[in-house]
Amino acid sequence: MRINGQHYRTIWLAQDGWRVVVIDQTRLPFRFETVALGSAEQAADAIRNMVVRGAPLIGATAAYGVALAMRVDASDAGLEAALALLGATRPTAVNLRWALERMRRVLASHEPSRRCEAAYREAAAICDEDVALCRAIGEHGLPLIRSLAAGKQAGEPVNILTHCNAGWIATVDWGTALAPVYLAHDAGIPVHVWVDETRPRNQGAGLTAFELGGHGVPHTVIVDNAGGHLMQRGQVDLVIVGTDRTTAQGDVANKIGTYLKALAAHDNGVPFYVALPSPTIDWSIGDGLSGIPIEERAGREVTHAVGLAEDGEVRAVRVVAPGSATANPAFDVTPARLVTALITERGVCAASGEGLAGLFPEIAGGAAA
Amino acid sequence: MRINGQHYRTIWLAQDGWRVVVIDQTRLPFRFETVALGSAEQAADAIRNMVVRGAPLIGATAAYGVALAMRVDASDAGLEAALALLGATRPTAVNLRWALERMRRVLASHEPSRRCEAAYREAAAICDEDVALCRAIGEHGLPLIRSLAAGKQAGEPVNILTHCNAGWIATVDWGTALAPVYLAHDAGIPVHVWVDETRPRNQGAGLTAFELGGHGVPHTVIVDNAGGHLMQRGQVDLVIVGTDRTTAQGDVANKIGTYLKALAAHDNGVPFYVALPSPTIDWSIGDGLSGIPIEERAGREVTHAVGLAEDGEVRAVRVVAPGSATANPAFDVTPARLVTALITERGVCAASGEGLAGLFPEIAGGAAA
Repeated sequence: MRINGQHYRTIWLAQDGWRVVVIDQTRLPFRFETVALGSAEQAADAIRNMVVRGAPLIGATAAYGVALAMRVDASDAGLEAALALLGATRPTAVNLRWALERMRRVLASHEPSRRCEAAYREAAAICDEDVALCRAIGEHGLPLIRSLAAGKQAGEPVNILTHCNAGWIATVDWGTALAPVYLAHDAGIPVHVWVDETRPRNQGAGLTAFELGGHGVPHTVIVDNAGGHLMQRGQVDLVIVGTDRTTAQGDVANKIGTYLKALAAHDNGVPFYVALPSPTIDWSIGDGLSGIPIEERAGREVTHAVGLAEDGEVRAVRVVAPGSATANPAFDVTPARLVTALITERGVCAASGEGLAGLFPEIAGGAAA
Repeated sequence: MRINGQHYRTIWLAQDGWRVVVIDQTRLPFRFETVALGSAEQAADAIRNMVVRGAPLIGATAAYGVALAMRVDASDAGLEAALALLGATRPTAVNLRWALERMRRVLASHEPSRRCEAAYREAAAICDEDVALCRAIGEHGLPLIRSLAAGKQAGEPVNILTHCNAGWIATVDWGTALAPVYLAHDAGIPVHVWVDETRPRNQGAGLTAFELGGHGVPHTVIVDNAGGHLMQRGQVDLVIVGTDRTTAQGDVANKIGTYLKALAAHDNGVPFYVALPSPTIDWSIGDGLSGIPIEERAGREVTHAVGLAEDGEVRAVRVVAPGSATANPAFDVTPARLVTALITERGVCAASGEGLAGLFPEIAGGAAA
């Protein structure tokens, strides 16, 4: 997608041909800065510190992290160490594990002397495939928006609520939840997006608003508290969110607060869709509440808010009374019963074991066996 | 209640005997400053700019605002002008209208020359009565906490979630939602409060955390997104919130986001209580969704977060991407069906017309007639 009119992906090879460049998402939307990652350690730090975030982009970055490690030590031990280092960065997004297992499988079939080249090739393939998956998600989600638009007065927009950032900067390109929105906008369908701020890290207010604005999509930022009220007033036509891990029975782990929006959508008869590429599905887990580990992040994310100060510097201000304790679970689990449908690269399906097995019979069968 | 060991109410007469002193709640929790209000205009500004906030305290401040106006012009026209000025400050809290109508009724029965003295007397009575009402709410809510404590292991706290600030600084003293919490804590019942941050103005992170900390009540601040997740995990035993206006059939307007927590409580079988003094009941309205006006506040509350910067100054930082639009509804309406019960100064009742009429037969009958 575009930033200031120039096309970008979120991750690419540097001109030196081996370092990996990413957009520093901790600096957005107020600074556009890129970072060149030169080692697996730097890639791990970038994931852990959320320089890159979003389940698909985490997977892509981890894959390149393995490639960077292979430049230094392509032995079996070096491979295992890199996989362990990168796998320990964040616990909830399953794409991370998926990408690392794919790298292990591919690289194990090569002699150490061939692993570096193979790793770069495989990481690039993961990135290209992610772009294709996200584009396909967009094409499968587009008819949902188009059919809602058909029920509107001329010029009246379809109002879509989203939580956190599942746009192109959460992936390699296009996004998951926002891919259908971009395609609808590009097709001339009037759309308007309600953007949840998404405390504590404000990925909605910062990142989603930034990328929608960059693409010219009309949108309005609201605090996380406001979405239920808007649904009660008939001001939301559908909800689309992304996910960091979806179970084989359709339970959805996503940014903390997603569950509350799913409840409000259910209470008001608003369709609630989850968009995901299949690497986000954890076929090994059925019940999401008991099975998905939920990351607890640093209290400072809660005690402070980060933004642009009047002096032009990005600063943190303390918003919590001094001395108070905090808790900071980063994700919650939305039960499948609250999800209208899943939008995948193969089409739209019910959030259920049957629904997923219908679209992915070869994998679902293998997991069940 | 206490600040730094000293007992305070939130509003009192200055030593000069006529000005009205309030705590500047826009400066809490980082600065404790008081403001002396010397005119009805200053009282109106204090309400509009949320120097004072919380439905009961808004009513008390408006009553004193009328008294300040009577010092200058106690004619019928002067009285009406003051009532209009103060009544236009904030639309949702019904205590404001209740207090002003009470002042009109009392002052209309006096000659202009007697109105100033009568107004100060009535405003003081409103304050004293609010303290008594809140204390009674605490006594009626205490058994709810005590019974939950009886089901706990020794020393294990009752976990109470609250949204926004309905503590003593939202009232004249004691608070509404927090009055039972303070009484439970003082009675030696182990309690722990989950404090919703409450964006956009952070009354939870700032004010509720401040006053719980001041009283030594264990508490943990969470972002507004986190409460549903905690309820799913069995970490919330009950929810208690305040209200700015409750209808005759038990629908509850309260700070934006309350509805989402009520949905989560309902989905997880967690009791959801609303604490209110009877002046918060609007007997003229049945359906809250259609009947209660919802204040839309300035976009800057959404685009910016206010807190303590590292240089020790209270500063605002922009958290929303430049150029993005915002919306800022300040309240939402929780339907009575999601409310376990109302806690009033006369006892606990169902959130329904029958429930309220059982406790307030003399008023409910009059409103229905």
